[in-house]
Amino acid sequence: MLTAAKQKETTPAIPFDSGRLDRLMEEAGIDVVLATSKHNVQYLLGGHRAFFFDYMDAMGVSRYLPVFAYPKGAAQNAAYIGHRLEGFQKEVHPLWTPETQTTSSGSVDAMQKAIDHLRRLGLKPRRIGVELSFLPMDAGAALRAAFPDAEFVDALFVLERLRAIKSPAELEMLRVASDRVIDSMLAVIESHGPGTTKHEFAEALRREETARGLTFEYCLIAAGTSHNRAPSEQKWQQGDVLSVDSGGNYHGYIGDLARMAILGEPDAELEDSLAEIEAIQRAAMKPIKAGVMGGVVYAEGEKLMGQSKNAKHMHFLAHGMGLVSHEAPRLTNQGPVPYSDEDAHRPLETGMVVSVETTLQHPRRGFIKLEDTVIVTPSGHEVFGDRARGWNKGGTKAAAR
Amino acid sequence: MLTAAKQKETTPAIPFDSGRLDRLMEEAGIDVVLATSKHNVQYLLGGHRAFFFDYMDAMGVSRYLPVFAYPKGAAQNAAYIGHRLEGFQKEVHPLWTPETQTTSSGSVDAMQKAIDHLRRLGLKPRRIGVELSFLPMDAGAALRAAFPDAEFVDALFVLERLRAIKSPAELEMLRVASDRVIDSMLAVIESHGPGTTKHEFAEALRREETARGLTFEYCLIAAGTSHNRAPSEQKWQQGDVLSVDSGGNYHGYIGDLARMAILGEPDAELEDSLAEIEAIQRAAMKPIKAGVMGGVVYAEGEKLMGQSKNAKHMHFLAHGMGLVSHEAPRLTNQGPVPYSDEDAHRPLETGMVVSVETTLQHPRRGFIKLEDTVIVTPSGHEVFGDRARGWNKGGTKAAAR
Repeated sequence: MLTAAKQKETTPAIPFDSGRLDRLMEEAGIDVVLATSKHNVQYLLGGHRAFFFDYMDAMGVSRYLPVFAYPKGAAQNAAYIGHRLEGFQKEVHPLWTPETQTTSSGSVDAMQKAIDHLRRLGLKPRRIGVELSFLPMDAGAALRAAFPDAEFVDALFVLERLRAIKSPAELEMLRVASDRVIDSMLAVIESHGPGTTKHEFAEALRREETARGLTFEYCLIAAGTSHNRAPSEQKWQQGDVLSVDSGGNYHGYIGDLARMAILGEPDAELEDSLAEIEAIQRAAMKPIKAGVMGGVVYAEGEKLMGQSKNAKHMHFLAHGMGLVSHEAPRLTNQGPVPYSDEDAHRPLETGMVVSVETTLQHPRRGFIKLEDTVIVTPSGHEVFGDRARGWNKGGTKAAAR
Repeated sequence: MLTAAKQKETTPAIPFDSGRLDRLMEEAGIDVVLATSKHNVQYLLGGHRAFFFDYMDAMGVSRYLPVFAYPKGAAQNAAYIGHRLEGFQKEVHPLWTPETQTTSSGSVDAMQKAIDHLRRLGLKPRRIGVELSFLPMDAGAALRAAFPDAEFVDALFVLERLRAIKSPAELEMLRVASDRVIDSMLAVIESHGPGTTKHEFAEALRREETARGLTFEYCLIAAGTSHNRAPSEQKWQQGDVLSVDSGGNYHGYIGDLARMAILGEPDAELEDSLAEIEAIQRAAMKPIKAGVMGGVVYAEGEKLMGQSKNAKHMHFLAHGMGLVSHEAPRLTNQGPVPYSDEDAHRPLETGMVVSVETTLQHPRRGFIKLEDTVIVTPSGHEVFGDRARGWNKGGTKAAAR
């Protein structure tokens, strides 16, 4: 039998900075946060993610919906409502939440249990922070009906800001993910020669990343002079360049890097093109350091890019990353999604992670790109997976076809 | 240059039975369907799934949201709004939808483009069918604002019914998935001996399924006398039973089977227990045939289960499956999600797929289960992955530890 002291020992500590969450909620005027995305729930539960629903969401006539409830300034009243299959995981690794129910089976009943919890606390929140992009209409309608006088606001920014500074443990997972993505790319490049289709290459990369303990997310791949980046039946032929840009996560933390390969020897124009991209990448990274304004990354990257004779075919991008591909710090309003550049005007902080990408869509030579992961440190920065940045030779260990 | 005839040739045909969709919409009183789940969009687009977002949804300050719009009786006015990264795939494999835009970057702008399409058609739908569990609040709010007088109803049942009868091509994918899940299980069982943790076993299965071209979804695993089914540091020891229940999909179609293993030799009680489960499985499958009422599966399975001395520790379950784990035909209201049993009172049809599961949570011997995939045919049924149903011996090809 557990003694009270022993019980206390086995209850995990709050895995995030709850004081920071309280301040962010105060600034946003949010009384209660209800997180319902897999990534935010994982963060708020210190790594817990329902293994049964890691890939899928749909089940039966509803879907998986995890609900994490957090009243401002009252971590002792936080609750987690998980699916009934999460009970097995809770037994193995107890969760920190003072109230944990693993009894839900769909979106509406999960939300209803969270509503019941807030009602038992006697809470009458004026403003409820929800994830508007990750709260399905049916569960959202149940919540609105339960709190008809409350205002609903997007908790995305509060939660994104909470996650922006990574702990050493999170950085280590990003390091592992980045290293293993590079290792996987090199393994596929050296073992695949002329005649490999882009499909075959992407599938081989999926297997290499999986074999290294990563969850493969995607492989963007362009070969030859084409700028098309989808896996296809197009064959990688002697002399062709190949751009590979892959995301694979380690316990949810994404390694996202892009490297180049070639079948044969790069000529001077290809060497120069990639050297120029490398120079832009290094110029953009160089000023990264805690306390420096986020905007320097773009300023330096775009300045050098502007001097290139290929400038009009080039694209520079920098964005935060972690549990989400493209998250805070937000440095640009020109990214792939409507993105503000608010972090361009704030200092970078130790533990922030910046992905830096330079792309050349060369009109004659194909798609040429590098993407890197840069960690902000007190004295400067560190680059994860900082290898294989030149022309990696394809097929050096390929079986004859 | 393409001639008109050639262009017509390269536009794919509608990949589903649009007449059936029209009838289902008519019965449900739905004027326009807007599908926004990955599985339904994949079905309605004949297999297209955005590879970049196969695993992840979140990106930047919003999320991936595919939107497929279909006005009743007017396939020529159907539209697909995909993410800008889906343009590469559209180039490789053109989509059938007369209007295809791969320009979206988040949930609200994707929905706005679908709204614009419906407005250009001059449609004023009275009832709009949406996926209430798969339509985020923000995109849903945009849709409501655009059609303030429309009623919003759940399109889940219409879409589920449309998918319930599988084509030969879909059945082939389910066959491949089922076979490869079984092959993967056998490979892991024979290569892992005493001392293997449940984590190691599940990770090995993930790699085996991936190496066989499947997308691993999950591994529920119980070992020894425990009924806990989460991967953990618990070791599989000499004499222990092991239950493995895994889902892995092939192009989205899920193979979902459960088999048993043991380290050593099963004694008479274990042999009898599994034989009894096998008998219940076979009894439940036996009446399955096109034209027979769906309710027979439960009737036969539960009748035999009721005769067992272990009946109070047993559980019988049967449910449809395909792109979704647990879908139509819906045979029970006792399943893992709120589920009606409407298909119990309708005839089974050729091409339906039924997953049959019998579980014994033996109070002394552990978790013992079989799960099978049964295809309804005109003359009876076919069982996919119909192998390895007894006690599979663990570690027969294991390296010494």
